[in-house]
Amino acid sequence: MSGPLAFGDWMKSVQSAMEHALDVFLPAAEAAPVRLHKAMRYAVLDGGKRVRPLLVFAAGDLFGAEASTLSRAAAAVEMIHAYSLVHDDMPCMDDDALRRGKPTVHVEFDEATALLVGDALQSQAFQVLSEGESLDDPQRKLEMVRLLARAAGAGGMCGGQAIDLASVGMTLALAELERMHQLKTGALLRASVLLGALAGKRLEAAESDALEAYAKAVGLAFQVVDDVLDATADSATLGKTAGKDAADNKPTYVSILGLAESQALAEKLRQDAHRALMPFGDKARRLREIADLVVQRKA
Amino acid sequence: MSGPLAFGDWMKSVQSAMEHALDVFLPAAEAAPVRLHKAMRYAVLDGGKRVRPLLVFAAGDLFGAEASTLSRAAAAVEMIHAYSLVHDDMPCMDDDALRRGKPTVHVEFDEATALLVGDALQSQAFQVLSEGESLDDPQRKLEMVRLLARAAGAGGMCGGQAIDLASVGMTLALAELERMHQLKTGALLRASVLLGALAGKRLEAAESDALEAYAKAVGLAFQVVDDVLDATADSATLGKTAGKDAADNKPTYVSILGLAESQALAEKLRQDAHRALMPFGDKARRLREIADLVVQRKA
Repeated sequence: MSGPLAFGDWMKSVQSAMEHALDVFLPAAEAAPVRLHKAMRYAVLDGGKRVRPLLVFAAGDLFGAEASTLSRAAAAVEMIHAYSLVHDDMPCMDDDALRRGKPTVHVEFDEATALLVGDALQSQAFQVLSEGESLDDPQRKLEMVRLLARAAGAGGMCGGQAIDLASVGMTLALAELERMHQLKTGALLRASVLLGALAGKRLEAAESDALEAYAKAVGLAFQVVDDVLDATADSATLGKTAGKDAADNKPTYVSILGLAESQALAEKLRQDAHRALMPFGDKARRLREIADLVVQRKA
Repeated sequence: MSGPLAFGDWMKSVQSAMEHALDVFLPAAEAAPVRLHKAMRYAVLDGGKRVRPLLVFAAGDLFGAEASTLSRAAAAVEMIHAYSLVHDDMPCMDDDALRRGKPTVHVEFDEATALLVGDALQSQAFQVLSEGESLDDPQRKLEMVRLLARAAGAGGMCGGQAIDLASVGMTLALAELERMHQLKTGALLRASVLLGALAGKRLEAAESDALEAYAKAVGLAFQVVDDVLDATADSATLGKTAGKDAADNKPTYVSILGLAESQALAEKLRQDAHRALMPFGDKARRLREIADLVVQRKA
């Protein structure tokens, strides 16, 4: 190769590889039960920036992980993420009708199907992660399963979601808001980074500490920027309902810190993320670029 | 030991060990987020006959699996089963208010919590199965994860649930009804048997074929008897709403075959199950006894 790809091109190549991998790892649309399979594919395919897969592949660069192993890990994380969006959008949770510019799954299909789609996508994630011949180290593969399960469950994403539910209409201190987001979105972003790295080799404590620090900063930055965009961008740009947090009376960084301070915090977190990556040198280029993307994105 | 325990005593000892294992493998009630953890424990603990754990432990007897490995496998299967009940009972699915003699999770807590409880229990299942030091064969442990993920997802339980949803108010042929149940309840019962056996050793093709035949017969018998009980027993005995299938206009064995022929089918399936176990001799005693229990139960 004649020098590394520009970040935009690298991102497109990962996104495109990911779309293919997800297509292959999801049940075929024409196989029975057709409605479930179609709805699973609707929920996952052709959507989003694929931030978690980008993190998996970027972290995979650190230790030369194989693309086929990264594909499985990235698809698994993305399926967990997609299932959580399907369930979060349901009437008993956020009751949202628009996601990634399309009707949400319970609107396009029905509530029962949306419930099952989420459930089946979670199983599919663990299936995809545990299958395949690419990684010839079952101990490490098992460690990846454990990591994803912990990140997804009560000690991770679902736990954060529960705290979020409990905090509607409440005044949260900044530390509590941070704790909620570290679980709700941070746990899966952290898992993405660690899965990518683990796909390459077993991690030394110093390596996983540095990656955790990076993931923590990026995860919080992600949420701060989400809150800023929710307060400043319109629905068409976001592909989801804007201003929803304020309307739902949910605590956000903007409601606690104000807009300017939230933007300053995002920039500080971007620098924290860069600093955490210093031990990895140039191999961490993509991870650095993702931190920049997360903070500088407009949607 | 002075001869094997009577089946009733063996069953009680497994159920009691299971209750303890589930207690340990679930998040603590007093840890945050408290409401989620309490609801997870409410959904899982103190409930049901634990048929799937019984199958795991009974199959574990075949090849001398260690109790600590069986505990994890059985707890994982039971968590998947419990999550499916929580989600099935929700208003957008079966809308049931009573389960195991207690208010269902969305009634006792709320719908959003019930949704999260199911989601978190599924993650917890994969976490419990993939953690622990008991089984010193990561390849086999990974195979167990794969087996559970396949049984739980679109190609198993969730797929069966989707077919069930699609068939409300329809006239199903017997073969279609059978296919639905083989996925909806059969997949997890089959996984229970295979997980228990795999906890002991890698399976030869002839061994897994025999166990599949056993599990298939027991799984169908389980459903036939469920339909018979739904049509003949009262809610107090069942601990759930009786007569629900007929009220919901769902196809059942009883609606297709009639009561007497359904009872005869259950007995035939019991004999099929026994026949499948012949190669294993006396080590399959518990599996045989479970087939008898499944067919002869009154609730």
